[in-house]
Amino acid sequence: MAKDRLPSQSEDFPAWYVEVVKRAGMAEHGMAKGTMIIKPHGYAVWEHIQRALDDRFKATGHENVYFPLLFPMSLLEKEAEHVEGFAPEVAIVTHGGGQELEEPLVIRPTSEAVIWNTYKNWIQSYRDLPLLYNQWCNVLRWEMRTRLFLRTSEFLWQEGHTAHSTSEEAQEETLRMLEVYREVAEDELAVPVLPGRKSPKERFPGAVDTYTIEGLMRDKRALQCGTSHFLGQNFAKAYDVQFSNKDGELEYAWATSWGFSTRMIGGVIMTHGDDRGLRLPPALAPVQVVIVPIYKTDEERGSVLEVANKVKDGLTGALIRVKIDDRDQHRPGYKFSEWELKGVPVRLEVGPRDVEAGQVVMATRTGGDKQQLAVGDAISGMAGVLDRIQTELYQDAKSFREDNTHEATDFDTLREGLEAESGFWAGPWCGDEACEKKVTAETKATIRFLPIEREDPGGSCVVCGRSGTERATWARAY
Amino acid sequence: MAKDRLPSQSEDFPAWYVEVVKRAGMAEHGMAKGTMIIKPHGYAVWEHIQRALDDRFKATGHENVYFPLLFPMSLLEKEAEHVEGFAPEVAIVTHGGGQELEEPLVIRPTSEAVIWNTYKNWIQSYRDLPLLYNQWCNVLRWEMRTRLFLRTSEFLWQEGHTAHSTSEEAQEETLRMLEVYREVAEDELAVPVLPGRKSPKERFPGAVDTYTIEGLMRDKRALQCGTSHFLGQNFAKAYDVQFSNKDGELEYAWATSWGFSTRMIGGVIMTHGDDRGLRLPPALAPVQVVIVPIYKTDEERGSVLEVANKVKDGLTGALIRVKIDDRDQHRPGYKFSEWELKGVPVRLEVGPRDVEAGQVVMATRTGGDKQQLAVGDAISGMAGVLDRIQTELYQDAKSFREDNTHEATDFDTLREGLEAESGFWAGPWCGDEACEKKVTAETKATIRFLPIEREDPGGSCVVCGRSGTERATWARAY
Repeated sequence: MAKDRLPSQSEDFPAWYVEVVKRAGMAEHGMAKGTMIIKPHGYAVWEHIQRALDDRFKATGHENVYFPLLFPMSLLEKEAEHVEGFAPEVAIVTHGGGQELEEPLVIRPTSEAVIWNTYKNWIQSYRDLPLLYNQWCNVLRWEMRTRLFLRTSEFLWQEGHTAHSTSEEAQEETLRMLEVYREVAEDELAVPVLPGRKSPKERFPGAVDTYTIEGLMRDKRALQCGTSHFLGQNFAKAYDVQFSNKDGELEYAWATSWGFSTRMIGGVIMTHGDDRGLRLPPALAPVQVVIVPIYKTDEERGSVLEVANKVKDGLTGALIRVKIDDRDQHRPGYKFSEWELKGVPVRLEVGPRDVEAGQVVMATRTGGDKQQLAVGDAISGMAGVLDRIQTELYQDAKSFREDNTHEATDFDTLREGLEAESGFWAGPWCGDEACEKKVTAETKATIRFLPIEREDPGGSCVVCGRSGTERATWARAY
Repeated sequence: MAKDRLPSQSEDFPAWYVEVVKRAGMAEHGMAKGTMIIKPHGYAVWEHIQRALDDRFKATGHENVYFPLLFPMSLLEKEAEHVEGFAPEVAIVTHGGGQELEEPLVIRPTSEAVIWNTYKNWIQSYRDLPLLYNQWCNVLRWEMRTRLFLRTSEFLWQEGHTAHSTSEEAQEETLRMLEVYREVAEDELAVPVLPGRKSPKERFPGAVDTYTIEGLMRDKRALQCGTSHFLGQNFAKAYDVQFSNKDGELEYAWATSWGFSTRMIGGVIMTHGDDRGLRLPPALAPVQVVIVPIYKTDEERGSVLEVANKVKDGLTGALIRVKIDDRDQHRPGYKFSEWELKGVPVRLEVGPRDVEAGQVVMATRTGGDKQQLAVGDAISGMAGVLDRIQTELYQDAKSFREDNTHEATDFDTLREGLEAESGFWAGPWCGDEACEKKVTAETKATIRFLPIEREDPGGSCVVCGRSGTERATWARAY
């Protein structure tokens, strides 16, 4: 751990973010531009996110599959909006096995093209539907300005791709998976999110509707935390995926796709972190409880570690992830700072006097006074302590978002508000892209979402004053 | 499912393999040459393999990480043997984001280069060691002759990469992970394997020693099922990874790497499959028990499904993976064949007479007479039935291997044996690569392994008659 002070969030949020990611051992830059190395502490968080999502995918009837990393450039070109959106970002393989390829291959930026080109062979009858498939993989979108987790050329994600026999069923699926994302974000990552629908301009290339969950980071900028797309019949038509319905007539299949990525590790960091470093929600924390033994003599070391191991065994038995930091080369104070930086929810200290008193000292990453607890109580009560911290983090973030959500009544208020320190600004919008672009041009903010079901915004467009048709929520965003 | 008969193993093993993989819904070819689509039934098997390995990696102190897919070609070139081995097989990215790259990037064929180039920054002192890291990822090695699972350009695997302060510790790690592989292969995949050491010619490019576990497939050809490499200080020297030891002196770090891939799904298919299709070991089977309801009238359907659901709930409660095949468009006989093809270990049939008698009929994929069981007994006894099938599959394969393992006493016996129908042939070898190559030239067989610890082969080289220095085991292999 570097010895110099972490930049504070208030003086330089981007610098704080970069330093926390590096010093906490979450990730670092790879050698090729835009690439990222996910370090053990960061990857372990990703594994917990994966498990939380995958369990829910399976509970909602989905199966995992794997489609190829590479496919011909020509395949991407079949869906017009899709290629327009992704062609500028793809990496192209021109040589393989020592020879120039006859046709260049692209590295997947997303897999609709290769999957729908295959679904053509898997779908003949309504009896073959629905297909409810997901894959865990890496994708690559060329990026010149990279930020660890938030924007890297290669990232890890899951992408669900489903096919249905009716529009209604596909739309239900789209919203079902959005709800899975909301639940994982809020219940596991403790990141409060607002679900909504994207404006046409912000839709996924090729989608009829894109739904999103949006969080608010500690610098009052929004983060898109997961998206679920209703693709209509666009991809079925582009890749000629037809099925015979119950009446024996041919129809194009209806599609959804939905993705959640390592970007959300950045979201967790920026939602919960403070000036001392990460604060990890217990559900995700690779280490939930760290035990720091405090001793001077070898004799003290022996008795202190005996108690530490007893506590560790007890907590492990209760399925709590616990670690003893028994490194001799560092003082306790150094260890305290390091584990705070890494965001471990609970620290237990055990010194010679604690051994005598049959107790441990507990400090939680969410603050408050240190507590002295009998060893047995520390073990039996720990699950409850972790639950409480999980709830505190969620509530803290939710209060923060509520404090930074505003109503825009006119354009000046909106512009000044977004320029000052962003947050969410909601107000009526006429639905015209010209007004949407005007706000972005003047404030760098974008429409983050509209209500899932269109509703009367109850007023005139805050930009142009014409009749409002949508209630839009604006923010500067990552 | 195609209606025509599956080729038998004895008439055309390769055709049998291809058809089983496709018809059982395990995998199919992707659009770009050499790529593979892993279908739900195949991917679910991979997920069970992943869990079995990953749990053991963590139990032996390893953590997961993720390194970039792409790295500069120049990085690969730093270890001389390594680049010689892999450069001919790499795919090269020359364009990204609409522009030609200044330096071409390679898609990882394996990650020693990018990882050791990073370990340089992570290792300064003996206190930083060992690093015990693993990653789950895709890799790509250009292949023109592809076979699903067994040989595809892109495949999925895990690659462990560890760094140590002493040669002894690294060698222990190499063998520890070989043992993890053996345990997973035998206990979970029910594939009996022989652990051994590769001849210098068959080593991983850049390794000091390569260890392997080798299985024997039903066509009497060997399959390398997993490898663990002791890399010595080769990569530390190539990428300049030095640490200060306890005496403050600089030393190069010692390395291991080890990998296990989707190839082993092919190994499971070829070890256990029979003329009716797959036979999946219960530990890996996505569906362990399929319940086929048998009925004619709607009334029968109702009462039969009621019992089927009761059995399903009971088995699910016992953590058994169970599915009811209640498709109306197929007859029971069709369903029986399909689930046999897919390798489901146990089939339960429930008809109107069974409902009356409070029983089900059980058939196992490993054969024997059908059994009538009271519903309660079917539920309470199922874990035992699955254990028995797991053991039967392992024992069957082990007997098969033992029946096809021979002693080579002279060159003619070896050559004729390997040409006739392969199997394993063991005998003394002088250690000279010329003799090794001669056997391969005449029989297409290779040395699959030598004993882990070199031992006196007790005779003269079966090829040249000079003094034997190693006991070699030969086979034709995948």
